[in-house]
Amino acid sequence: MASAAIVTIGNELLSGDVENTNGSWLARRLEAAGVDVRLIAVVPDEIEEIATTLREQADRADLVVVTGGLGGTPDDVTREALAAAFGVEQIEYEEVGTDLRTRFRADPEYAARWAQLPAGSRPLANPLGGAPGFLLENVYVLPGLPAEMEAMYKTIEEELRAGPPIDSWRRSYRTTESQIVGILTQALEIHPRVRVGSYPSFGANGPYVEVVLKSNDPDALEAAAAWLTQALEQRLG
Amino acid sequence: MASAAIVTIGNELLSGDVENTNGSWLARRLEAAGVDVRLIAVVPDEIEEIATTLREQADRADLVVVTGGLGGTPDDVTREALAAAFGVEQIEYEEVGTDLRTRFRADPEYAARWAQLPAGSRPLANPLGGAPGFLLENVYVLPGLPAEMEAMYKTIEEELRAGPPIDSWRRSYRTTESQIVGILTQALEIHPRVRVGSYPSFGANGPYVEVVLKSNDPDALEAAAAWLTQALEQRLG
Repeated sequence: MASAAIVTIGNELLSGDVENTNGSWLARRLEAAGVDVRLIAVVPDEIEEIATTLREQADRADLVVVTGGLGGTPDDVTREALAAAFGVEQIEYEEVGTDLRTRFRADPEYAARWAQLPAGSRPLANPLGGAPGFLLENVYVLPGLPAEMEAMYKTIEEELRAGPPIDSWRRSYRTTESQIVGILTQALEIHPRVRVGSYPSFGANGPYVEVVLKSNDPDALEAAAAWLTQALEQRLG
Repeated sequence: MASAAIVTIGNELLSGDVENTNGSWLARRLEAAGVDVRLIAVVPDEIEEIATTLREQADRADLVVVTGGLGGTPDDVTREALAAAFGVEQIEYEEVGTDLRTRFRADPEYAARWAQLPAGSRPLANPLGGAPGFLLENVYVLPGLPAEMEAMYKTIEEELRAGPPIDSWRRSYRTTESQIVGILTQALEIHPRVRVGSYPSFGANGPYVEVVLKSNDPDALEAAAAWLTQALEQRLG
């Protein structure tokens, strides 16, 4: 299965001031596109930290999706960091620069900074904003503003699609994990193509456990769900 | 300044099904304790992935805070992963095991699994639950359930405190980043002890920018805020 790392850039995420909704939105979309997300990382607005993380993840995952840091203020260093990570220069992409100067007549030279992409990039249009994203090697770089990020993601979604969606089955049972651990262990052995998760909670009516199965194989998922439903009903009465 | 990495473990976070509120809660508390958070990472319930991430981060940061995977079902592998990361055995901590068997009489042997900590750990009591956390080298391991995680964190907060809190100043201006980029750049040069961030938005009344300053030096923060307020008011009228 194709693997992905999601790297979201921004001090406001790293300090906990803003929840990383871009990370979880991308994770859900990538699973729906059949891509297995192996890491969601939040890193600061610093060239060396971003470059180190991206060098590592570009080697480990088939695909890296980055968000944030594409503006033109001093804390926006993502273009510089990608150039550093891959050891290339930043150059002005002429067609992109011309387009930006035309569209942002109030501040053409400010907007033209957004055209300074790492050499070898493929620019990605920003349907809702100014700064383009880009693809460099196996790293897709998208804006940080959620609306702009989502619109740009949709333009690349089809080229990222790697297989059938990773679907899930979930059901809650009034029980504790200790009561069902044997069945969960057996489920893993009998249904190796399915991931098994269990999430305990303590509600007003006592403990319960949400059991979650995930797979990109619909038949395997259905078979595991049927097996598990029966086994748990038998166990719990 | 002491640095920290936060590593939250769990497939439900990695698939975007659950927001990583533990990550942002810990980030806010660590900043308040004067600790500089350099990474928030979400990794899957897999021994090798967790161990790789922790080996790297234990070297890079002064302090690593881990949450999740301390239950006893097959997807709970954090104790195993820590033992693998540091090349030590898992052993039953006798006092912890006795205590757990006494408290969980319905399933004493299930509960006793939680006492199988990596050799060399210092156990951390779980005021609201069963499975203890632990400290191994510079890695603090806490539960994944937010209520249990927060209660355990409070028991170690004082030993983590590394200096004065990282405080922030923030104000929103009706403007665009291109109008104030020169002032933000100058602020960084004149006030090197302060971090400067800017976050553009587009509301019903047009564009605005939130400007954020952060520092663990109250005097530096106050001086930078005063300088920036005046400079921005002069610029924007």
